[in-house]
Amino acid sequence: MSESGSAGFTHLTESGDARMVDVSAKESSARSATATGRVLLAPEAVSALRDGEVPKGDALAVARVAGIQGAKRTPDLVPLCHPIAVHGVDVDLQVRDEGVHISATVRTADRTGVEMEALTCVTAAALGLVDMVKALDPQAVVSDVRVEEKTGGKSGDWRRSR
Amino acid sequence: MSESGSAGFTHLTESGDARMVDVSAKESSARSATATGRVLLAPEAVSALRDGEVPKGDALAVARVAGIQGAKRTPDLVPLCHPIAVHGVDVDLQVRDEGVHISATVRTADRTGVEMEALTCVTAAALGLVDMVKALDPQAVVSDVRVEEKTGGKSGDWRRSR
Amino acid sequence: MSESGSAGFTHLTESGDARMVDVSAKESSARSATATGRVLLAPEAVSALRDGEVPKGDALAVARVAGIQGAKRTPDLVPLCHPIAVHGVDVDLQVRDEGVHISATVRTADRTGVEMEALTCVTAAALGLVDMVKALDPQAVVSDVRVEEKTGGKSGDWRRSR
Amino acid sequence: MSESGSAGFTHLTESGDARMVDVSAKESSARSATATGRVLLAPEAVSALRDGEVPKGDALAVARVAGIQGAKRTPDLVPLCHPIAVHGVDVDLQVRDEGVHISATVRTADRTGVEMEALTCVTAAALGLVDMVKALDPQAVVSDVRVEEKTGGKSGDWRRSR
Amino acid sequence: MSESGSAGFTHLTESGDARMVDVSAKESSARSATATGRVLLAPEAVSALRDGEVPKGDALAVARVAGIQGAKRTPDLVPLCHPIAVHGVDVDLQVRDEGVHISATVRTADRTGVEMEALTCVTAAALGLVDMVKALDPQAVVSDVRVEEKTGGKSGDWRRSR
Amino acid sequence: MSESGSAGFTHLTESGDARMVDVSAKESSARSATATGRVLLAPEAVSALRDGEVPKGDALAVARVAGIQGAKRTPDLVPLCHPIAVHGVDVDLQVRDEGVHISATVRTADRTGVEMEALTCVTAAALGLVDMVKALDPQAVVSDVRVEEKTGGKSGDWRRSR
Repeated sequence: MSESGSAGFTHLTESGDARMVDVSAKESSARSATATGRVLLAPEAVSALRDGEVPKGDALAVARVAGIQGAKRTPDLVPLCHPIAVHGVDVDLQVRDEGVHISATVRTADRTGVEMEALTCVTAAALGLVDMVKALDPQAVVSDVRVEEKTGGKSGDWRRSR
Repeated sequence: MSESGSAGFTHLTESGDARMVDVSAKESSARSATATGRVLLAPEAVSALRDGEVPKGDALAVARVAGIQGAKRTPDLVPLCHPIAVHGVDVDLQVRDEGVHISATVRTADRTGVEMEALTCVTAAALGLVDMVKALDPQAVVSDVRVEEKTGGKSGDWRRSR
Repeated sequence: MSESGSAGFTHLTESGDARMVDVSAKESSARSATATGRVLLAPEAVSALRDGEVPKGDALAVARVAGIQGAKRTPDLVPLCHPIAVHGVDVDLQVRDEGVHISATVRTADRTGVEMEALTCVTAAALGLVDMVKALDPQAVVSDVRVEEKTGGKSGDWRRSR
Repeated sequence: MSESGSAGFTHLTESGDARMVDVSAKESSARSATATGRVLLAPEAVSALRDGEVPKGDALAVARVAGIQGAKRTPDLVPLCHPIAVHGVDVDLQVRDEGVHISATVRTADRTGVEMEALTCVTAAALGLVDMVKALDPQAVVSDVRVEEKTGGKSGDWRRSR
Repeated sequence: MSESGSAGFTHLTESGDARMVDVSAKESSARSATATGRVLLAPEAVSALRDGEVPKGDALAVARVAGIQGAKRTPDLVPLCHPIAVHGVDVDLQVRDEGVHISATVRTADRTGVEMEALTCVTAAALGLVDMVKALDPQAVVSDVRVEEKTGGKSGDWRRSR
Repeated sequence: MSESGSAGFTHLTESGDARMVDVSAKESSARSATATGRVLLAPEAVSALRDGEVPKGDALAVARVAGIQGAKRTPDLVPLCHPIAVHGVDVDLQVRDEGVHISATVRTADRTGVEMEALTCVTAAALGLVDMVKALDPQAVVSDVRVEEKTGGKSGDWRRSR
């Protein structure tokens, strides 16, 4: 933080109150964001997913649909998020020994980045999955939900560095 | 998993299709669930939260409101979740060196447990916070979101063991 | 219509204006409603569903989730519907030569019947399915959506007669 | 405010943070709340409503439906409001010389009062009406929205005194 | 279906999982879709609609508002639907001997077609109407809901052929 | 109203039925609307807001978030409102002797004006505030909610004159 104080923080009005930043002067352009996360599960739950004892298709299908719908509902959930035209969503779930890895890419041709949409997609898919397996493992943990990379927009491409 | 196969998994119909389990015969009773989670942040973001350069009250207030509203919107987000009468929500956010710790307790006097509501509350608060500080730290991570304990219901009190 | 005029129509105020009927004096009791409907499809679309060229599991899984979530969203869609505690939802989809048959049963222990929830569940599943196959058959038709039977409540069990 | 400080303000945690007050120990009981409000309109808009140049039935019908749906959506709009089982809603709109008077009564048999639901019903009806007539009068004013009386609950009946 | 297998089905990823197709590279253009449907009713219900024993204006007005709001809520209901800028909605309801005919046209200047919005509009209007008359005719049937024609977009105008 | 009858009222079809006006041929352009309103409060409530006995930051922060989210939810609440890309929202709340003054400016670069979004923002903030202080003053009144000025669009800038 430099001497310029909070001058650069466009979420805040002079008095420190939250506001939705005006993006009407920004140009629409193709943008994407990819986020990932994990749902850590007990071996029994992983086995059930793998052996179809929790019908794999359905548990993962429900989580996938939850993720896509979550992406669309981002402005409802995140108070200062702009409503945005979500133009494409891919959600990928992979069952591994420790649980399920989730990756989501959201695309748009709009005025703001879609990293919050990608994060909301991953968390909604994770919550949908936890709900499906919580009878098998009430100790499921949602972890490491984070933005991996972004493309497009004025600031250009970005890839996480830590 | 015992020999009884999927007999005990009430989310599934015989053919393995997802359904919303019938709980109409369950009795309403006082229940609660507590979930926790963390938002890991760069030192600059933590400092900003602490020094009020990101006006602490507001960033945390927005996250707290996001959490409470998220708890109410659980059945919208989690496909097979029952709509439930959320009777009380406490959300606590604490700024620490590594980021922000979130704890949420949801209470009800209804027919099903509220662990999904508590998890949704924590994740919605986390997403709300990430959105507030993402200009300060685009690498924020939502981690360790999990149920800590439950009270009430037929199965009685439960506390996480791992 | 008997001589009693509109006396029995509790959706209307004296002046003919719509209102949400007061049910607070009604007792909560176990109720269910079953509705059915059909999505008529071209042979190519039916074949694709059967042969997995439209991955059967997913198209039907998406429709099923759409139906369950639609049931929960009934009071949002149907203006004068009471918000109700949906306690259980079963959605069944069967691929037949002419298209897909949908059957949904909604259960509650609340103050009003759930026939609108069952109808909304069927139509939401139907719309979800049409969206999945509309590239295969843009002429899909949603037809014969109707309540088949109801149980519980003051008026007791009811079964359709035409 | 007495010496007891904030002891009686159950919306606040010790640290002053907002929370949704726990009402799970309260008993369900029949409650109602009536709220009123006015939409002040230019004479031309009032004439149009009266003469059917803005087809009276529709403009008022749209407003009425908006009010009923608004009542159901109260917990979405008012952050700390409990989701509540709205059991009945009456909305009355009367065209007078100065504009339209709106009165709404909401009924429930639940754990909390429904004054916020009644206020939200009146404001949603008012906004719906303003939208219908704004081409006729862009200067419409929504005014005097307030709770008139409440019945039921532990605190008993209440009537506004100023 | 040609030998090219599922190559042309853009709703599916390679592994057959549902995703929201990326339309960000499509151009916005004026588009419309018209859908129709019927609500089949008993003669008593039709008479009541005609004679104003079920106040015609209101029952049809409620259905019309339900349809317009349903069109706006399409991406909430249909899991893989893109959120779209609905730019115009006309809903027409006509009372005939067999019941009520519904026709809806939805217009946009956006990247995807609006046939799902038109279908959702018709079904929401139908459900809203059924709810209004279900005390008069619990056997109402929603039938023949289908897209009649589309205009605009890359594929140009289309009219149903069966 | 001239002899041209209802020719200019684009919310109405020929038969007087409500419809959502087609704006797809309008050009997107930068627009804004500012609305204001007041919440009249008892001196005790004002004092509590000023002295922090109702923790000022939070009560006002909750109201502010309610306003921003309300602006985004305008098309859900106002039946014939177009869904619009809300591009910026400022909400200002000032505590005065008589209560709280609310001012909101909504900005967009879309096809229709945002005066309904600005009015919904003010009313949602007002309802959120009333809910926070209703234990202190159950007689709060929401008053004088109105559009102050608009900029942009085909009709150009406009400022209220009465």
